[in-house]
Amino acid sequence: MPSLPQPPINDTLEAVGEGAVLGRIFPRLPAAASELVGPGDDAAVVTAPDGRYVVTTDMMVHGPDFRLAWSTPHDLGWKAAASNLSDIAAMGASPTALVVAIAAPADSPVSLLEGIADGLRDACAALAPGCGVVGGDLSVSGTLTIAVTALGDLEGREPVLRSGARIGDVVAVAGALGEAAAALRLLFRDAVDAAGHPDPRLAESLRSRTGPQLAPAPPISAGRAAALAGATAMLDLSDGLAIDSGRLARASGVGIDFDSMLLGDDPATAMAGGEDHSLLATFPPDAALPAPFRRIGVCVASGIAVDGEAYDPVGWDPYRDWSGSAG
Amino acid sequence: MPSLPQPPINDTLEAVGEGAVLGRIFPRLPAAASELVGPGDDAAVVTAPDGRYVVTTDMMVHGPDFRLAWSTPHDLGWKAAASNLSDIAAMGASPTALVVAIAAPADSPVSLLEGIADGLRDACAALAPGCGVVGGDLSVSGTLTIAVTALGDLEGREPVLRSGARIGDVVAVAGALGEAAAALRLLFRDAVDAAGHPDPRLAESLRSRTGPQLAPAPPISAGRAAALAGATAMLDLSDGLAIDSGRLARASGVGIDFDSMLLGDDPATAMAGGEDHSLLATFPPDAALPAPFRRIGVCVASGIAVDGEAYDPVGWDPYRDWSGSAG
Repeated sequence: MPSLPQPPINDTLEAVGEGAVLGRIFPRLPAAASELVGPGDDAAVVTAPDGRYVVTTDMMVHGPDFRLAWSTPHDLGWKAAASNLSDIAAMGASPTALVVAIAAPADSPVSLLEGIADGLRDACAALAPGCGVVGGDLSVSGTLTIAVTALGDLEGREPVLRSGARIGDVVAVAGALGEAAAALRLLFRDAVDAAGHPDPRLAESLRSRTGPQLAPAPPISAGRAAALAGATAMLDLSDGLAIDSGRLARASGVGIDFDSMLLGDDPATAMAGGEDHSLLATFPPDAALPAPFRRIGVCVASGIAVDGEAYDPVGWDPYRDWSGSAG
Repeated sequence: MPSLPQPPINDTLEAVGEGAVLGRIFPRLPAAASELVGPGDDAAVVTAPDGRYVVTTDMMVHGPDFRLAWSTPHDLGWKAAASNLSDIAAMGASPTALVVAIAAPADSPVSLLEGIADGLRDACAALAPGCGVVGGDLSVSGTLTIAVTALGDLEGREPVLRSGARIGDVVAVAGALGEAAAALRLLFRDAVDAAGHPDPRLAESLRSRTGPQLAPAPPISAGRAAALAGATAMLDLSDGLAIDSGRLARASGVGIDFDSMLLGDDPATAMAGGEDHSLLATFPPDAALPAPFRRIGVCVASGIAVDGEAYDPVGWDPYRDWSGSAG
């Protein structure tokens, strides 16, 4: 069965030991500009200049959330950071710090942890400069699991909640719509071997087209820009535009009518596909949309619709029938 | 094989669904006094009155960290909270908020999650009143995993690091020494069936003596008290007094000499046993020790010793040879 390359037998987590593994990982992790006390004590101490902080947590689990045959360790670190950073951005905040707990099989190569650390570092540098890793935990588990908690700073602004949209508000998005789902569809179709198992070589050959799924790059700084431009509501698109826009609409007591002409070449995938981690926001009708937001709809009295016709969302659970043992 | 009682087939996580499960769990979780925006949006917003916060994360994994035949769901939530709260306390801070990510098998009973939530609630109420759960994440995994991130407030004080102990400082502890290890030894000896598998009924019959291992109650408020009393260094005892005191000593550039007469009835277990989550602190020679700290040794020039004789610590990894499939 395709899997990770086998490590040298003497370079696994259990052979190297927790202390030495941490010694190899910590230097790879980015420091946070907000850090007063960093890794190495019982806890970190982080600045909160305006007397508040934003906090969110999200776990990625081998099996339900990713395939080791498709995602590189770097991808896993990158995506774990990106998906949490976007939740901070969706509050209108700037990400400042991460803490990261990882559980991995004892026979994992240390390079798995090093790759995850590099992915965390590169995602912070690219998407949220100044944000870094201030603490963490390393455990042994039969199931590779990455739990990230992200923290952010509102810089004196009020948080942008899901509940502030009003009828007539412009609905806008920053980032991709449906690209992560399209890339996953491609992987399920073309990156499996004849027996249906995920294949790392086939996935590698598709790499130029699978980035939106394996290492999404949501526009994190757009969250702050939306808040400054007066966004009335905002959230992170993790389960697809249809489901997540329904959450924003329900919290706000409004509906949303999307314009299919503004949803790209494949409006159906734009509506149904999850994991883009783009930002969906609403703005007053007369607001100038900050870059890179683009208008895709309008707040109406009730319901989720496309071109005025009610849209019935389906759940986003692409790996549901795949077991972790399949790669 | 002994395991959790089988749930009604229609009351598992996969049958009930994530939204409905969260709807049953959230009302059980304690609100945090520090919470400005709680669960239900992309992230929480928490007060940080002194412009800083303390943050730590720790993961509990079925297999390496607990047996489902021995720990109740309530125990798991309690211990996940207690072990993280003690890391906040060890900085001299008061715990204010938790975020909790849980991954559980799809066929787990919803009562597993409800019990964990109740344990989180009861531990916060007993150990750190005012601290609550401000956010979380629920995932499916083959391996039950609980990742808690705890946050705390320094209330204007400087954090108490591991590195501030000086030669001549009094070494003191607040909380149990070796009781968690003694309770685990009892479970390994008397709570396994003839085939060596952990047995829930036998564990239940020992309950009056296993609390220190399954649901430890470290003196969380003692962390703040130590800081106010001028503690020069402090840390949480998770891997045993010998190993953890070595960490404090190395960080401070000192040694510690323990007095065996002050280590209780079983000094060897007090030195070697992990998971008490008690607080080890050092104080200036003339400081009045705040309750419930008691003197157990003194900072010397180098090394870890008992009654002046060098002590060689052994690692704390009691479940090392036990697979998660054993219960």
